[in-house]
Amino acid sequence: MRDLSQHLEHFALNTATLKQWPLERIIDGCARRGIRAIAPWHADVERVGVAQTKRLLREAQIELCGYCRGGLFPVAHASERDAVFDRNRRVLDAARELDAPCVVLVVGGLPGAMEGEPQSRDLAGAREQVKEGIARLLDYAKSLHMPLAIEPLHPMYAADRACVNTLEHALDLCDALDPSMQGDLGVAVDCYHVWWDPKVDAQIARAGKQRLLGFHVCDWLVPTRDMLNDRGMMGDGVIDIARLRRQVEQAGFNGFIEVEIFSSDNWWKRDGDDVLDTCVARYRTVV
Amino acid sequence: MRDLSQHLEHFALNTATLKQWPLERIIDGCARRGIRAIAPWHADVERVGVAQTKRLLREAQIELCGYCRGGLFPVAHASERDAVFDRNRRVLDAARELDAPCVVLVVGGLPGAMEGEPQSRDLAGAREQVKEGIARLLDYAKSLHMPLAIEPLHPMYAADRACVNTLEHALDLCDALDPSMQGDLGVAVDCYHVWWDPKVDAQIARAGKQRLLGFHVCDWLVPTRDMLNDRGMMGDGVIDIARLRRQVEQAGFNGFIEVEIFSSDNWWKRDGDDVLDTCVARYRTVV
Repeated sequence: MRDLSQHLEHFALNTATLKQWPLERIIDGCARRGIRAIAPWHADVERVGVAQTKRLLREAQIELCGYCRGGLFPVAHASERDAVFDRNRRVLDAARELDAPCVVLVVGGLPGAMEGEPQSRDLAGAREQVKEGIARLLDYAKSLHMPLAIEPLHPMYAADRACVNTLEHALDLCDALDPSMQGDLGVAVDCYHVWWDPKVDAQIARAGKQRLLGFHVCDWLVPTRDMLNDRGMMGDGVIDIARLRRQVEQAGFNGFIEVEIFSSDNWWKRDGDDVLDTCVARYRTVV
Repeated sequence: MRDLSQHLEHFALNTATLKQWPLERIIDGCARRGIRAIAPWHADVERVGVAQTKRLLREAQIELCGYCRGGLFPVAHASERDAVFDRNRRVLDAARELDAPCVVLVVGGLPGAMEGEPQSRDLAGAREQVKEGIARLLDYAKSLHMPLAIEPLHPMYAADRACVNTLEHALDLCDALDPSMQGDLGVAVDCYHVWWDPKVDAQIARAGKQRLLGFHVCDWLVPTRDMLNDRGMMGDGVIDIARLRRQVEQAGFNGFIEVEIFSSDNWWKRDGDDVLDTCVARYRTVV
């Protein structure tokens, strides 16, 4: 197991952790601390501009550990599928331009549900659309040499955000769509989403180095007051994060450890420098 | 698949659905509508008294479809285990006295977490305690001829309420602790907890008639505003309840369909008669 306490070689920041800062300031704040990698969100990159983002990253000597995000495949009408594909293609193009190692896929749930107006109760149908959507996108991704990382989300997001909710399900999709395991399709393992799963160790081992494209950390708070935006700083909750890190590293993962905390009532309200310093301190001691 | 639209022969009410009414009034309200079964909570039965509850049920010609609840096994210190066993034994004694067909087990999560002060991050250890706790209780339950029904809860309750979160895990426990499948140990399947699971159909089939001791219905609202008490009336959410009912009935289940809705900001604030009438109407048309 790697020693994280002495340096930030493996530390990465998902920029959603610092909602209070624009992307430019996050890049600067990371550079000042010797942080080497971030995972930005496409909407923020679009606002700054891909070329300008690329310049800022190069100047700061910061690379990407992933790109957020593609996916959201299920639609109410088949006629909308081309628009979904085009949206995802643009995300992949930007990721390619920024030399991201992978694009993270949040696959989507029941059509309309994320907007609060679900159009269907057909969860199996949504899952079929996800499979077809990834299959189509994968061809394009391969042409760009841009790996896709399916991120299983916690089952409490099955309706509205992602109907792939276990690592086992994500890996079944990988095996079905990319049986050759050449690194084109894999998974992003986020402690928050998988910690509860009694099969998580076995599935991490099954994934192995070839499929493990990302490892995200935050903590599960007790109580959790909001289903989306009440995630905890590492050490403040009940997830045995170090145990999960040992599992992924034993399976061969040696990439960045990405801190990703959605926290509307706590960390997003604090001073950004304090938040980033706390992330680093907890990374050294808890993760 | 049974036709529910013409009568209430298979309808049952979990009394937590009518938090606004005391147990006596719920029994009366059910009797007036020709409802034949309820699942009461032990604390309410203790308040009324077991003997008095038994008398009220007999007069109303209402039987139990289950008894809530045993479980909450994990503790911070081994010295507390006897107290847990004794608490559970009293629940089983009351269930026996009331001729309940089974006691539902909500198995518990990390010690202290339900009180908001988790004492541990050892989820595997909590699961081991659950297994040992059920094994010990099962001996007593067999002596009373009182089946135990493990209720897997949604993974969002893994920390604080139940660390058995999939039907597969619950059935693995059943197979380990009751390999002879004589009906002493089984599961309660609640749509709310299992609807998201891509393996739910296969696991319902695996459970079969011998292990399916209960079937509960409510709905998953989009958005869900509270993790415990924002459950929906059947038809108001995104669960394809009829599909799940077909699965359990195809697997051999022919027991009561128990309506159980925790709803602090909606149904618990309404007139109890209206709530009960709505439960019945939705049962006939949606379930």
